[in-house]
Amino acid sequence: MKTFEIAALVGGNLVGNGELEITHGADLADACSLSLAFSVGDASVETDAGCVLAKAGSAVAAPAVIYVDDPRLAFSIVCEILHPPKRLDPAIHPTAVISPTVKIGDGVFIGAHVTIGEGSVIGDDCQIRPGSQIGDNVTIGSGSILSSNVIIGDGCTLGSNVVLHAGVVIGTDGFGFARDKDRYVKFPQIGTVMIEDDVEIGANTCIDRGALGETRIGEGTKIDNLVQIAHNVKIGKRVVIAGQSGIAGSSVIEDDVVIAGQVGISDHVTIKQGAVIGAKSAVFPNKIVRPGFWTGIPVQRSADYLKQAALLRNLEELRSEIARLRRSGQS
Amino acid sequence: MKTFEIAALVGGNLVGNGELEITHGADLADACSLSLAFSVGDASVETDAGCVLAKAGSAVAAPAVIYVDDPRLAFSIVCEILHPPKRLDPAIHPTAVISPTVKIGDGVFIGAHVTIGEGSVIGDDCQIRPGSQIGDNVTIGSGSILSSNVIIGDGCTLGSNVVLHAGVVIGTDGFGFARDKDRYVKFPQIGTVMIEDDVEIGANTCIDRGALGETRIGEGTKIDNLVQIAHNVKIGKRVVIAGQSGIAGSSVIEDDVVIAGQVGISDHVTIKQGAVIGAKSAVFPNKIVRPGFWTGIPVQRSADYLKQAALLRNLEELRSEIARLRRSGQS
Amino acid sequence: MKTFEIAALVGGNLVGNGELEITHGADLADACSLSLAFSVGDASVETDAGCVLAKAGSAVAAPAVIYVDDPRLAFSIVCEILHPPKRLDPAIHPTAVISPTVKIGDGVFIGAHVTIGEGSVIGDDCQIRPGSQIGDNVTIGSGSILSSNVIIGDGCTLGSNVVLHAGVVIGTDGFGFARDKDRYVKFPQIGTVMIEDDVEIGANTCIDRGALGETRIGEGTKIDNLVQIAHNVKIGKRVVIAGQSGIAGSSVIEDDVVIAGQVGISDHVTIKQGAVIGAKSAVFPNKIVRPGFWTGIPVQRSADYLKQAALLRNLEELRSEIARLRRSGQS
Repeated sequence: MKTFEIAALVGGNLVGNGELEITHGADLADACSLSLAFSVGDASVETDAGCVLAKAGSAVAAPAVIYVDDPRLAFSIVCEILHPPKRLDPAIHPTAVISPTVKIGDGVFIGAHVTIGEGSVIGDDCQIRPGSQIGDNVTIGSGSILSSNVIIGDGCTLGSNVVLHAGVVIGTDGFGFARDKDRYVKFPQIGTVMIEDDVEIGANTCIDRGALGETRIGEGTKIDNLVQIAHNVKIGKRVVIAGQSGIAGSSVIEDDVVIAGQVGISDHVTIKQGAVIGAKSAVFPNKIVRPGFWTGIPVQRSADYLKQAALLRNLEELRSEIARLRRSGQS
Repeated sequence: MKTFEIAALVGGNLVGNGELEITHGADLADACSLSLAFSVGDASVETDAGCVLAKAGSAVAAPAVIYVDDPRLAFSIVCEILHPPKRLDPAIHPTAVISPTVKIGDGVFIGAHVTIGEGSVIGDDCQIRPGSQIGDNVTIGSGSILSSNVIIGDGCTLGSNVVLHAGVVIGTDGFGFARDKDRYVKFPQIGTVMIEDDVEIGANTCIDRGALGETRIGEGTKIDNLVQIAHNVKIGKRVVIAGQSGIAGSSVIEDDVVIAGQVGISDHVTIKQGAVIGAKSAVFPNKIVRPGFWTGIPVQRSADYLKQAALLRNLEELRSEIARLRRSGQS
Repeated sequence: MKTFEIAALVGGNLVGNGELEITHGADLADACSLSLAFSVGDASVETDAGCVLAKAGSAVAAPAVIYVDDPRLAFSIVCEILHPPKRLDPAIHPTAVISPTVKIGDGVFIGAHVTIGEGSVIGDDCQIRPGSQIGDNVTIGSGSILSSNVIIGDGCTLGSNVVLHAGVVIGTDGFGFARDKDRYVKFPQIGTVMIEDDVEIGANTCIDRGALGETRIGEGTKIDNLVQIAHNVKIGKRVVIAGQSGIAGSSVIEDDVVIAGQVGISDHVTIKQGAVIGAKSAVFPNKIVRPGFWTGIPVQRSADYLKQAALLRNLEELRSEIARLRRSGQS
């Protein structure tokens, strides 16, 4: 891309050479004359980058500087074009084992050692990498990418442009049992999973099928590695869930919620639109979490959490104070 | 199943039509005339279900109502018959790579891209789904189901009717090292794993082999997704362990323990029969946890935990009180 | 090995028969005359082991006793020889799908259902077990072992004698997005992963590629199962990270740090050389953690944590004391 094209794409104000050729994104520190980099702060920047995205008013010495409101966002938008996800040429590897009843769209890549079960439908331009195992009656929308060793259970549905990273498991049985005298009887886990368009799910994350109904992940939601999503969870649109968090059965995560890493959400919880849950927090069963920032085990408003943490740090002083009061009362 | 058969199976009291044909289990809300549903509360129920399992005394309008003590358990028992786990017809896929020394029972399904190493024994009626990798000298009891991409290390033993979901790893090396001057020397991880009958293990859960002895999972125990069981852990019968919990080396979990999600059990801990550990709790090394409900980091009796949590919420008030006392003492 | 050879290897003081043949390591309780066992305490030991490693001064009755400073370390050193990791004879399974541009060293084993992409280099004596999927332009140093169903993304580099257990994912995309009005734009995840020599990584652990630069795991570092290492994390040499811990983006873990299980390290944290982080702890963003023992959410020095925990246990007493003071003040 030429620098003037980049400026036009991000709606930025270009200062310097508009005809420079840019081939890739890079950090300011590792950049060369063919690099696009970005600067988020106000500090003056030294870099070898050919082009830098920066906030208005920042002092950047580079052959081309493009001023934008949100340099990191602008950088991401340009890199969507400079670094599109890898797409292998359409082909079906001869070692793939595909039921004759599978419908495969145009432009699809299916790698080695893949299996696809009866009645499944693979949309146009999908990429299914080596070792992925797709069950029966699975539907995958166009443009979706399954990385290596992804597993999709029977009857699950993926929208378009879904990205599943290595080792993701979609549609495994939920965890539900009823206690009989001397054994656990399995509660039926016969529902499905529905993953809407533009969802991205990180490596080795597990998403259980609904027990009777469905588990749903809303459009544009992004989930990190090693996350657990239990049966019948409903996740809204544009939700972000960081690594190693877990959401127990039947909880509802509304649109635009942000959940940091290692968070635990118990069952039958509702997290309302606009709530942000801090790292390592826990929400216990049946709670409703309202908009705002929440932290702690169990979560409280982050302002309250910080106040309480400060009180805790002063607990010893409090105890000393009481001892002093007691002594002065006795004297 | 006919409704009179369902009533007989669960020992319930049938009111209404005993000859209705029921084909599947469903939620009250999604049910149709062919559905069995269940109601746990006392509220009056509106549903299109043909048959409802309910507690004596609840007001349910349906063509057939079966009154039982535990409707959810009864529903689960009926659904074991209506919705048995999927079993593919016996076959060995030509892409499976099976050592000639493997003994395979009757009625076994082995899917595509499976490997089975030397000297392993696969019992009757096992189902081994695509992409599973089974090592040498593994023994799998009859009727067990390995979902896709399951991995079983050399020398491990599974009982009968064991269910391993996608991506489960059994018999990986435990995590033990001895520090030498400038490096870690691996402590030998040469033991085994023994999984008893009727155990079910969730997706991407890992169970380490014993360092020198064995890691054991007792009969009828149920383990959720993304759980970590370290070397030499002994888990009793009918234990329940929810998602993302972890149990460190050599700990003992006695029969009928319940461990909620994201719990951490350190090494050399004993959890006594009848203990229940709340979500996100931690048990630190060498502790013995007695029967009852336990919560917190580290765990305390749940009643104490709740009392302490209430005190914590009042910490600011306590501080104000002390300030008042000090002022009144000075006046 | 003869017992005199064992004594020489570990530099110990042999008492008893130096010509005994020892075939394997075992626990004191399970040992036989061909076993090497070890005793860490001072208590007198009863065992059937042919040879016992023990601390000077301990009363051990065995045909051969070897006195050493660190019996567990000495046992580990001997077991490195008695129980070397399994190495299958060099061979490339016919079902492996290997790009013609891959360079494969001498003595390499490549199992069934493996794929290796364009331009990758597999060093001498590597073992790549069934179902592993290796991308393009991956370099693996000599003597490395990839267990079953391991996934290595394009362009990642492994040193020599690296051990990756089953289901490990190296080089998956990091979790970074920039919020546009009504969607998340992916921040580019186009960096790499560099795993240095002698690193061992546990089952189903995920290591993200750098966003723009690299994620690096230093020489001799040991990582347990189900751990999450985010993009651009730099881990030093001889670091130990136990199960289910997670390290968020761009954090730096210096040499010789020890991180226990279920720990969360937020982004842009530095853990200084010599720090030990206790189980279930959390380090919040941008912190620097200095040498010493740290525990809690968020971490504090373990001595402070224990003091605070004791104060918390006395919180009710504190409250009663205040009530008494108030009453006595009013009287």
